[in-house]
Amino acid sequence: MKLIKTSALLALLSVAGINAQSLKSPDGNFEMNFQLKNGVPYYHLNYKGKTVIEDSKLGLRLIKDNTIAFDNVNKLPDGKNLNSDFEKIAENRDSKNENWAPVLGEKKYYTNHYNELSVTLNQPNEDRKIIVKFRLFNDGLGFRYEFPQQKNLNYFVVKEEDTEFNFPYDLKSWWVPADYDTQEYRPTTSLVSQISTKWESSFDSNASQTLVKNAVQSPLMLKKEVSGKEKPLYINLAEAAVINYPASHLEVDSENFDFKTHLTPDAQGAKGYMQTPAVTPWRTVIVSEKAEEVLDSKMIFNLNEPTKYTDTSWIHPVKYIGVWWQMFVPNRGTWNYTNIDNVHLGVTDYSKTKPNGTHAANNDNVKKYIDFASKHGFDAVLVEGWNEGWEDWFGKSKEFVFDFITPYPDFDIKMLNEYAHSKNVKLIMHHETSASATNYERWLDPAFKLMKEHGYDAVKTGYVGNIIPRGEHHYSQWMINHYQRVVDKAAEYKIMVNSHESVRPSGLSRTYPNWIAAEAARGTEFEAMGGNNPDHTTILPFTRFMGGPMDYTPGIFQTQYNYYDANSKNFANTTLAKQLGLYVVMYSPLQMACDLPENYERHLDAFQFIKDVAVDWDDTKILSAEPGDYIHTARKAKGSENWFVGGVTDENARDFTVDFSFLEKGKKYEATIYEDGKDADYVKNPQAYNIYKKVVTNGSKIKVHLARSGGYAISLKPIK
Amino acid sequence: MKLIKTSALLALLSVAGINAQSLKSPDGNFEMNFQLKNGVPYYHLNYKGKTVIEDSKLGLRLIKDNTIAFDNVNKLPDGKNLNSDFEKIAENRDSKNENWAPVLGEKKYYTNHYNELSVTLNQPNEDRKIIVKFRLFNDGLGFRYEFPQQKNLNYFVVKEEDTEFNFPYDLKSWWVPADYDTQEYRPTTSLVSQISTKWESSFDSNASQTLVKNAVQSPLMLKKEVSGKEKPLYINLAEAAVINYPASHLEVDSENFDFKTHLTPDAQGAKGYMQTPAVTPWRTVIVSEKAEEVLDSKMIFNLNEPTKYTDTSWIHPVKYIGVWWQMFVPNRGTWNYTNIDNVHLGVTDYSKTKPNGTHAANNDNVKKYIDFASKHGFDAVLVEGWNEGWEDWFGKSKEFVFDFITPYPDFDIKMLNEYAHSKNVKLIMHHETSASATNYERWLDPAFKLMKEHGYDAVKTGYVGNIIPRGEHHYSQWMINHYQRVVDKAAEYKIMVNSHESVRPSGLSRTYPNWIAAEAARGTEFEAMGGNNPDHTTILPFTRFMGGPMDYTPGIFQTQYNYYDANSKNFANTTLAKQLGLYVVMYSPLQMACDLPENYERHLDAFQFIKDVAVDWDDTKILSAEPGDYIHTARKAKGSENWFVGGVTDENARDFTVDFSFLEKGKKYEATIYEDGKDADYVKNPQAYNIYKKVVTNGSKIKVHLARSGGYAISLKPIK
Repeated sequence: MKLIKTSALLALLSVAGINAQSLKSPDGNFEMNFQLKNGVPYYHLNYKGKTVIEDSKLGLRLIKDNTIAFDNVNKLPDGKNLNSDFEKIAENRDSKNENWAPVLGEKKYYTNHYNELSVTLNQPNEDRKIIVKFRLFNDGLGFRYEFPQQKNLNYFVVKEEDTEFNFPYDLKSWWVPADYDTQEYRPTTSLVSQISTKWESSFDSNASQTLVKNAVQSPLMLKKEVSGKEKPLYINLAEAAVINYPASHLEVDSENFDFKTHLTPDAQGAKGYMQTPAVTPWRTVIVSEKAEEVLDSKMIFNLNEPTKYTDTSWIHPVKYIGVWWQMFVPNRGTWNYTNIDNVHLGVTDYSKTKPNGTHAANNDNVKKYIDFASKHGFDAVLVEGWNEGWEDWFGKSKEFVFDFITPYPDFDIKMLNEYAHSKNVKLIMHHETSASATNYERWLDPAFKLMKEHGYDAVKTGYVGNIIPRGEHHYSQWMINHYQRVVDKAAEYKIMVNSHESVRPSGLSRTYPNWIAAEAARGTEFEAMGGNNPDHTTILPFTRFMGGPMDYTPGIFQTQYNYYDANSKNFANTTLAKQLGLYVVMYSPLQMACDLPENYERHLDAFQFIKDVAVDWDDTKILSAEPGDYIHTARKAKGSENWFVGGVTDENARDFTVDFSFLEKGKKYEATIYEDGKDADYVKNPQAYNIYKKVVTNGSKIKVHLARSGGYAISLKPIK
Repeated sequence: MKLIKTSALLALLSVAGINAQSLKSPDGNFEMNFQLKNGVPYYHLNYKGKTVIEDSKLGLRLIKDNTIAFDNVNKLPDGKNLNSDFEKIAENRDSKNENWAPVLGEKKYYTNHYNELSVTLNQPNEDRKIIVKFRLFNDGLGFRYEFPQQKNLNYFVVKEEDTEFNFPYDLKSWWVPADYDTQEYRPTTSLVSQISTKWESSFDSNASQTLVKNAVQSPLMLKKEVSGKEKPLYINLAEAAVINYPASHLEVDSENFDFKTHLTPDAQGAKGYMQTPAVTPWRTVIVSEKAEEVLDSKMIFNLNEPTKYTDTSWIHPVKYIGVWWQMFVPNRGTWNYTNIDNVHLGVTDYSKTKPNGTHAANNDNVKKYIDFASKHGFDAVLVEGWNEGWEDWFGKSKEFVFDFITPYPDFDIKMLNEYAHSKNVKLIMHHETSASATNYERWLDPAFKLMKEHGYDAVKTGYVGNIIPRGEHHYSQWMINHYQRVVDKAAEYKIMVNSHESVRPSGLSRTYPNWIAAEAARGTEFEAMGGNNPDHTTILPFTRFMGGPMDYTPGIFQTQYNYYDANSKNFANTTLAKQLGLYVVMYSPLQMACDLPENYERHLDAFQFIKDVAVDWDDTKILSAEPGDYIHTARKAKGSENWFVGGVTDENARDFTVDFSFLEKGKKYEATIYEDGKDADYVKNPQAYNIYKKVVTNGSKIKVHLARSGGYAISLKPIK
């Protein structure tokens, strides 16, 4: 009897009308099934034998003809879409199991282990084909569309991608409303079935916003809640490798617990201009019974291409302070040098204007920050407001808003950099673009040249306001390409980029390791502009952080702002000890101690943790986590035996037992524990904390108590 | 008795409720009256005591708030508009009478003679003011809005400018329909009252078009037709100095013979982003009883600022031929090197592709053109299709479509330029941008550097297709600024610019003399794509040419294309002799002899005129002209005693008597006359021509006969 090959068997099945392909994860827990039903492609995902994603369609709609000048993409007829009338003409399988080392990361190596299925689909009438490529990992599924170069598919315009994620049951979700221009809303926690009713109250105003009704942003965190012995399921929807394609959002059919991709449009409503060969980003579905494993997942990075940079020695972690927070708290400084309401760069003579006396980025103040940074071992000082143009930078749709090369009269760029270098500190450059992307591109070369001339190697960019080219959005294809152009050019100059208000990362730091961090979510600055919810930092690692680090800029010690203005009733929704925990819980190779030096000086004992904590890691253990509630994390510093532990909680006080079993057997460690004081409370008594030392081994356990919106941090070093 | 000053008198009139200001032209023929009626500003223009423009409103509508991201400008509320609730708070008068020398021009000096009235209008509730500035010349009126920098007016967004031009009677008009993206329609001749009925049939398809219903383009030519002894009036509406503002069109109320400005919108429908101090372009109204005087008017240039360039020695006239026309006629060559349908610049290896054998810009062919140019005294050879990317350059909305620096394998840029220079010829660079303006800006520096490296000093740019940034239009504010950026950067490199598919010139060649020509209308190339009407070139000088020269690229000798393809029934709607006349009738300092060398070689006697004709002039006389019918022009070459005469007619054959009274008294000239042959006909016998010589003086007259769509040319040199 001839052995029937799998492919022959499948061929028989095809003949029988069952046109299905099956893929399993390496450990066999996941099974993905692909099938065509009447020429329409579907996929289906099981985990441990149960449906996680029920039959969900795949496909894209196209615009008929991109040679016509059109005002409204809805006026153009659809092209023949890439979502039906398919036949499967080929399939290929592959697999990979490798370890790779990120330039900067949470572990020394990440493991990339998957089984792959590529299905080639042909539209016989159109004589054109696409490929859907699936990769199943032990932590979930990634898939994307591929468009090979071929006679009948060279250029096409995407009207919309219609990838579905249909769930068979309701799910708890942590979501922000979809928006083409901002990611800075407070997350809402609700059932998926409640999203449509809660959508209208899920956002407040922002400097640039274009909301999408009944849609949410990705990454999206979900949970199948259970009772009894059933294990819950934690599910994360995101995307990887967003290159030359718009970022995606998720339309929600609340009644049916169904999601569908919704791409960011351009100024005319078109979604993507494609030239074959082309690929879409990977759509990712991470699934685990343990929330900790979601945080541990490196799938999004695994789906990105390895870097082609031959030399990455110039890419390094950065711990920094900055002339920045003082502009957010009351009465402590401004970005602008003078108080005029109309600037013509190159014409306005700043030397003839009246200094407002509040300009923070002045020589004396910057030197104080440099002194503090040097004294306490920080790598760098960010300086915002160093350059001409801040008087009228926002809200004017002013294209030539900054030139990125002309300092204010009281910022001596040469002297300050020399001063910093003499003290083993660098300055971090600041390029607020005011979302005038066309202008920024014009100035990139002179701006980067200036940086190198004065020894800067890192820049924080910003995109506050409405994008120019007008009509484009922060996450449209053109802007995705803009952020890429900036990173590419920065790499030519060996400059690291920390981009704010840019698109949320999708693992591109694997391919472009100089893109070391981004903001792209609601960060610490909002503690001075309305506040962040106490559970904010227990959610972000499950959402925003999945595709890459965030420059969250923690470290507020002076949480109550009546310190600055006796009439202020505002405060940051956090205890001081929680701020320390964030350095471990929220991974970034670029970490800020955001507060003013004077506030650290008044708490040097607590500040010691920030001075000691590493920002680049050989290992990471997520000890315990529940989205929206708490996260406890331990990390081992790169090239060191030192470990750091951090934990944060939401609006509920909690107790937690730190189990040190991750430590090396047979070693003793001195642990310094920083925790909320007994009566600490983020509203009434945020600065109450305890610090004590203890010798521990891998058999030790320590109980910590977290106050409401509190936290703790522990630094461990081996005892010789 | 105290002498009452004019201003005091006017103040008395104001008190009396007659809020009017009057301005006269230097010769007193024009009177412009400005008045506020219930706070709304109006102007009125009389010529020789009769109304030319009846009370016409002035003003602009604004968008309320430009800090909001908006999809549709119509969804935003209007701001407090700048069109009502004004009071006049000041007026100033000025005058000027100067001669100035254009770097390249139709005369050695242009005279700039006007009386000026500036009226300052205040909106008391808003506490903000604008200025309307009027200049009355002996050939008509120019006026603009000025927005001084002030507390309550720093940034504003124009929703629409509503400047009216209301006529008291019907007018004959020569018009093309308004379009945000092209100017390449055949002109329609009709009464203004017929524009609304004829609008729908006034256009055909174009590579990039966004029509505006019931609106026409400017410059617009009009004529008040009369009977009996009354003199006709020729009226031209145009604009001068379009800088950092969109180009304007004219909405038509056909019933009432009224026109109103209609600006080109951006991607969101907004018309202009303004920062004070700011000014609009000048709106110009040229009026004369003689059509010749309209062509002679230099008002639009006079309204532009003098140049700030300190060195203009690198700006010079150019007479050129080119590897170009052969790509328009059948079977004679292609821009593209190979026949593939998908190019990735920098990835596609052209050395591995199969040359199509039709690529015109190859070394051998270019050398032939260089040889021809050198032999016949031409300055330069334009070469199109020299660079990678032509295989898929059009209609794909491909942003990275050209890099402007990588030649095809068969174009040796170094060798060809050296070869050309050895023969006293330059090459002209070609930068077809495919309307991908953002891409072009990224490559400007390397592209211009390459030009200088190889000795190019002139570039022809092109903007075929839909603009990128997508949603912008060819004549929107952003693109006006783009063209300006290109010209500014070209000036840094001492490069002259000839821009095609760009905005129609508005006299900016006075301020930026390296912007030596533009296409920006339906040119000779359309003789190979549907044909131009026989009267086309009797209209364009009254419209397109008013604001600056056009690279019309005349010189077709082989008008019938069955020469290239026996099956072709197409032909250019012109006799050969008419082509010669165009070199004098249509002024440009950059003139092409467009046809293939072989066609000139078969008619070297006629070609001699093109070799002899100058392109830069000390004097110009419009001998006789009627829009849409005929133009006869005489010009004196710069720095020479040589004169050239040219004449063209429409679809009607005509006789004309050339009166040489413009020649210098007491001198004899040898005239070489090139005219249509006795039986010449643009359809049946286009290449029939006569050439003969005659000695003339300033007392001589010569009769010429022009065939249907025919013409003639005369070159004159003094006999020693």
